[in-house]
Amino acid sequence: MAQKPSIPKGTRDFNPEQVAKRNYIFNTIQGAFETFGFQPIETPSFENSDTLMGKYGDEGDRLIFKILNSGDYLSKADEEAYNEKDSNKLTSSISEKALRYDLTVPFARYVVQHQNEIEFPFKRYQIQPVWRADRPQKGRFREFYQCDADAVGSDSLWQEVEFIQLYDSVFSALKLDGVTIKINNRKILSGIAEVIGASDKLIDFTVALDKLDKIGEEKVKQEMLDKGIPQSGIDKLQPLFSIKGDFESQIRSLKTILSTSEEGKKGIEELAFIDNATSELGLKTAKLQLDVTLARGLNYYTGAIFEVSAPEGVKMGSIGGGGRYDDLTGIFGMPNMSGVGISFGLDRIYLVLEELGLFPETVSKSVEVLFINFGEKEALFSLKAIKALRAEGVNAELYPDKAKMKKQMTHANRRDIPFVVLVGEEEINSNKYALKDMEKGIQEKVSLEVLISTIKKKS
Amino acid sequence: MAQKPSIPKGTRDFNPEQVAKRNYIFNTIQGAFETFGFQPIETPSFENSDTLMGKYGDEGDRLIFKILNSGDYLSKADEEAYNEKDSNKLTSSISEKALRYDLTVPFARYVVQHQNEIEFPFKRYQIQPVWRADRPQKGRFREFYQCDADAVGSDSLWQEVEFIQLYDSVFSALKLDGVTIKINNRKILSGIAEVIGASDKLIDFTVALDKLDKIGEEKVKQEMLDKGIPQSGIDKLQPLFSIKGDFESQIRSLKTILSTSEEGKKGIEELAFIDNATSELGLKTAKLQLDVTLARGLNYYTGAIFEVSAPEGVKMGSIGGGGRYDDLTGIFGMPNMSGVGISFGLDRIYLVLEELGLFPETVSKSVEVLFINFGEKEALFSLKAIKALRAEGVNAELYPDKAKMKKQMTHANRRDIPFVVLVGEEEINSNKYALKDMEKGIQEKVSLEVLISTIKKKS
Repeated sequence: MAQKPSIPKGTRDFNPEQVAKRNYIFNTIQGAFETFGFQPIETPSFENSDTLMGKYGDEGDRLIFKILNSGDYLSKADEEAYNEKDSNKLTSSISEKALRYDLTVPFARYVVQHQNEIEFPFKRYQIQPVWRADRPQKGRFREFYQCDADAVGSDSLWQEVEFIQLYDSVFSALKLDGVTIKINNRKILSGIAEVIGASDKLIDFTVALDKLDKIGEEKVKQEMLDKGIPQSGIDKLQPLFSIKGDFESQIRSLKTILSTSEEGKKGIEELAFIDNATSELGLKTAKLQLDVTLARGLNYYTGAIFEVSAPEGVKMGSIGGGGRYDDLTGIFGMPNMSGVGISFGLDRIYLVLEELGLFPETVSKSVEVLFINFGEKEALFSLKAIKALRAEGVNAELYPDKAKMKKQMTHANRRDIPFVVLVGEEEINSNKYALKDMEKGIQEKVSLEVLISTIKKKS
Repeated sequence: MAQKPSIPKGTRDFNPEQVAKRNYIFNTIQGAFETFGFQPIETPSFENSDTLMGKYGDEGDRLIFKILNSGDYLSKADEEAYNEKDSNKLTSSISEKALRYDLTVPFARYVVQHQNEIEFPFKRYQIQPVWRADRPQKGRFREFYQCDADAVGSDSLWQEVEFIQLYDSVFSALKLDGVTIKINNRKILSGIAEVIGASDKLIDFTVALDKLDKIGEEKVKQEMLDKGIPQSGIDKLQPLFSIKGDFESQIRSLKTILSTSEEGKKGIEELAFIDNATSELGLKTAKLQLDVTLARGLNYYTGAIFEVSAPEGVKMGSIGGGGRYDDLTGIFGMPNMSGVGISFGLDRIYLVLEELGLFPETVSKSVEVLFINFGEKEALFSLKAIKALRAEGVNAELYPDKAKMKKQMTHANRRDIPFVVLVGEEEINSNKYALKDMEKGIQEKVSLEVLISTIKKKS
């Protein structure tokens, strides 16, 4: 092989520093999930194709990675499709498995399959990679992690309140102050559509409304007109476009707009409950904001809708989102399993922390001390000290070869190892260690005890 | 969908307890890897097919899961193969990617691809799943994790010494006392083959020898005869079959047998060095044993060969293994990258810990305290305490619904939650919490401070 090997487009290698930074985010999220009472599950990387296909729309189906059957897979190929050379039609006869596309459908499958072992209400979290045959672009990959937490088997609005606390906890722990947790409610959108006489065009209406930030009021109105929403209805929307201010004043405006819609009023009630409880409990660093234009995943969500945006000044799409659904598992024949869930966008959070310089300095700390190798006797003496250091949780190693001193010191420098220990005959005889602080450039002879405590103090 | 959904054969769902136990093992291994100076990398789940194909032999190639190309994949299908309906021949034209089969080939690819960014010697660890289309059977899965540590870019035997320390550290930390770290050296096997005049039959010879434990001396000899090794050579092997005793006495026997083989003597020297250093450094709970029949992965290994077996009395294959290789990256055009690596068998270690009851009791501890939900006012009061508990790292939650008390208590019982807190009007007024220790069945009224300290003490 003459060419340097490469990896498939849209995939990534992670070097030690990147892994350490990613793990810092994962561990923070996982720690918060656990203090909030969520429990981990894991599902296989690939599922039976019929578990996944047809759950994400036609576009989703196309983006699912299919796994070719093993062995003589053509022997079972659909003959008609084969003769017609119809890729689409052939697939299901030569591929029975597919890589998971998200964590929600596998979770639904898990709940149905294990319903008799699960104690409901069930709060699960899941942090695993998913795969999508999307066109790769900046910040969009073919393999990426999802970090999901869901609580199923209860309608209680306390869970929405809890998820807001959870977002606040995670982003505060990451020192990412000032994120905005945007909230809306499907019932508000339904109510508005009802009021303007566009109940049958709820999706068109919300898709247009969702673009308000991006394309502005006039273009949103035009799109609604184009979709067949009457001008009279759009006129009634005017107060909506001018809704401003804090949560409470927005609620007051909505009460006026939605006074004739039972569903709309229910939505207002839910939002008010969540807002009140959140005010009582307080948020550490995040703020909660009502955003009546928020409509993500509307086909799916039936109550609260969440989206988290990065602190002002950081250009980045949403770094988290979620919502309440009435029917997680109906697709697998188990009706009425309602719940609410949120997700964290690992890759985007990573980019934001990087941009703002928020990764702790110690996050990619690898080896804390390197022992220079001066030969067999010295190496053995060193390894005894290294063993003691490791027992104290210090990351320590011996340079494996008796190379030139300069080469070994350069190695320590290139790897940003903060301490180097030099052990020669004199040190062995006096049972001491020459400890060099690489940053300060200071070297001193110390006992094993002082060696350990000095290095531990710095780490 | 009428039928309950299922998962592909050979794959597994993991419930919260299983995830917690697996993470306990992962974290222990990872912690040891890091104190020993290994750094994490991660590679994509799928690689370009030409990175993987042809690296594991014909059988390996068959067991690699191939990913079907997206879109109209048949438009690029090899015409001849298509017309002949030859699955094997067709594959490469309709599938460009494949799931990784192990972590070694991706690591080799990584080293070559990133050689200019890597500071050698490079010690990396990698804990990720791999996939094999093997026939599933007890303890063998189609998706499973590998936990590998390798040190490349140095010939130093100190690394072998270090890997033995690493095995000892991990199994001691897991409280799995009494594992045996078996060691051999390819040069010993080559030397023996040379001495008995079967240098050209090294693989046949070692494959037969490797079966000594399973099929016994006579059958091993018969197999060697069948493979064309002369009786005179097999006679010379006799001392080998009767090699017994500790490391030093085995070394002495080998010195006699291999006195005429330069390569054999080099192997003895290496083994003696490793044994001496290990004796000097000591092992916490493992023991090191020379096993001249050990030959795993011989095609690959050029020096030390390791295998770890579970403590006596536990029926289980090897729970770890590894060895030294001269040429990790030659397959990708980068010669002379020598190194040594070991692997931990997660699934088997799990089974052994389970069998011996060695998982710590707290490993699957999930929620430590559940607050009973008596209504809105009580729930809000409770959530304030829950927030304080979580800030102290306690896993706490509120039952989401105002259900019957009995139902909520049953929920706590079924989930083995050790503490339950009951907050009614009286508690709110006196700013106290009724804390019930579910195990002892004792209930007492306490302040928030005592509530926190009591629960923390037990966890």
